[in-house]
Amino acid sequence: MKVVQIGAAGHYAYALGTIKKYGMDFAAICYPDAEDGAARAARNLERFGFAPRVYEDVETMLHEEKPDIVIVNTVMYKNSQYAEMALSRGCSVFCEKPVATEMDKLEHLVYIYKEAKKKDPSICFCGMFGIDYLPHFETAYRFVKEGGIGEVMLANGQKSYRMGNREKFYSDREKYGGTIPWVAIHAIEWITRIGGLRPVTVTAYGNTACNAGNGTMEASTLSVFGCEKGKMASVSADVMRPAKAPTHDDDRLRLVGSKGILEVRFRKVFVIDGEGERELPLVETETELFEEFVLEIQGKGKCRVSAEDAFFATRIALAARESQDTGKSIEILPI
Amino acid sequence: MKVVQIGAAGHYAYALGTIKKYGMDFAAICYPDAEDGAARAARNLERFGFAPRVYEDVETMLHEEKPDIVIVNTVMYKNSQYAEMALSRGCSVFCEKPVATEMDKLEHLVYIYKEAKKKDPSICFCGMFGIDYLPHFETAYRFVKEGGIGEVMLANGQKSYRMGNREKFYSDREKYGGTIPWVAIHAIEWITRIGGLRPVTVTAYGNTACNAGNGTMEASTLSVFGCEKGKMASVSADVMRPAKAPTHDDDRLRLVGSKGILEVRFRKVFVIDGEGERELPLVETETELFEEFVLEIQGKGKCRVSAEDAFFATRIALAARESQDTGKSIEILPI
Repeated sequence: MKVVQIGAAGHYAYALGTIKKYGMDFAAICYPDAEDGAARAARNLERFGFAPRVYEDVETMLHEEKPDIVIVNTVMYKNSQYAEMALSRGCSVFCEKPVATEMDKLEHLVYIYKEAKKKDPSICFCGMFGIDYLPHFETAYRFVKEGGIGEVMLANGQKSYRMGNREKFYSDREKYGGTIPWVAIHAIEWITRIGGLRPVTVTAYGNTACNAGNGTMEASTLSVFGCEKGKMASVSADVMRPAKAPTHDDDRLRLVGSKGILEVRFRKVFVIDGEGERELPLVETETELFEEFVLEIQGKGKCRVSAEDAFFATRIALAARESQDTGKSIEILPI
Repeated sequence: MKVVQIGAAGHYAYALGTIKKYGMDFAAICYPDAEDGAARAARNLERFGFAPRVYEDVETMLHEEKPDIVIVNTVMYKNSQYAEMALSRGCSVFCEKPVATEMDKLEHLVYIYKEAKKKDPSICFCGMFGIDYLPHFETAYRFVKEGGIGEVMLANGQKSYRMGNREKFYSDREKYGGTIPWVAIHAIEWITRIGGLRPVTVTAYGNTACNAGNGTMEASTLSVFGCEKGKMASVSADVMRPAKAPTHDDDRLRLVGSKGILEVRFRKVFVIDGEGERELPLVETETELFEEFVLEIQGKGKCRVSAEDAFFATRIALAARESQDTGKSIEILPI
């Protein structure tokens, strides 16, 4: 299988190990944005033994190379258009999240994906939700799906990041999409995929105060979701974790179910149920994110985070951002 | 000072130690509701050496005894009217929370309190927010007030209780006020008093599913607050903590500030700031809740949870319940 890459502003590193492992052809790359950091990306690729041809233009690259897989991760606001280009040419797409930064762009991307899938059912689309592959989240997922805590009624998700030194495009909400679509989206995806909740309405807040000079970036955000069957969820996402914090992130998920409560905190999983409180042994995931994607294209497997999961999480995040901007509760349509 | 008590459905036990310590006269009691559990209360009081006269009628008791202090804690929906009776007669009131179960009742109680206070400035009103006196919450309060985490921008509060065996009135939301005014109110009070946030709007959810047969009681609730200066807060409150959980409650508070993050969890306090992460040594509170109340009446001190704090937390909780019931965001007026 032939792989090409568009941009280098995101988590393309998720793909490199698998490309090498399977001896795939990393044929070409194009850096459509000055902030893609071409020099640094080239060094990273070289370290893996990849020396892709470099194109000036995405359209030309896709036309000339006719790849099977396109990795899309330039500056966020451009990703959906490149994903569409690739899908329209019959390529499978491995795309940074948020997979679109505007609701109309998302709707169009979903339409293009469905059309491409109709023409060629082997075409796949995968969002870069790599956090779900960490042992603590996979452990939580399996326990919940086995019915370990019964039916989830209430979920609380948390993302908290150090600010660190961010590329310039993070100072422009138009370009990175905003902190809810960029950061909160992970916890949104957990409450839907792991918790099984289906949000139908959202009320959200965001504030640029304390953003360490990062322009229009929100440093703190908070979203609450009314979900199907009267269930409910909150997602708190901030970029205010002090520089001296012991880790970059503080990911948490709390699921309150009819039979027990599960909590992910500090990369561990705790459960309280009819047997009392205990820590779950962590399961290791057998396949990586990009590997599952390749296996799905080959008809040998299925991405645990499906295309629909990625689209739905993005739609919810964009609805939350709309609520933040308008001061109104926003309805969320199903995918 | 002479003390009388109305009802015994709440936390009157907060008062008993101080009454004994100060040798105050626990003169009389009245049980206006069948669910006050008169027999059990009489046994508790006897254990402290108190043998108050028992009245059939509250009005008669207040008229005959002319107490300085009235402890009000019958079934919740009756508390505000008895608090008003006592305040109107020039008594100070120690009142169970929520101090009112309807917004118009709360407004009237605040009015009666202000009128009574105008006539006699020594009159005091104190809500039973005893959790604030626990070392971990007092430690958090002092650290935040000393500026330890700077300006709080985002707060996440959590209350989670075991259901246990509840008196019958908890199965009737009209009588106990609902789970937000009953349980979430504590975390609401933390985000306002400890976090310093001033909520101006609320969106909230509640669900009676999984309430173990407790009628109209919500087992899960979730509220999000837009606050002054673009700040934000969430309060998750449930009664779904499994019976085999190691403790009755799982109180948590997370405050994200301009200079650091403070978290109360598992009765400990953790801070991450410019110096890294550490656990704070717990401070012990010198005076108990009811003792501070007595000292305030005597002009020798001040309740850490003021009358205004109690009224405001109740107003916020009732606004949240209104949002839950109407499906709309509700504006919160200042006290």
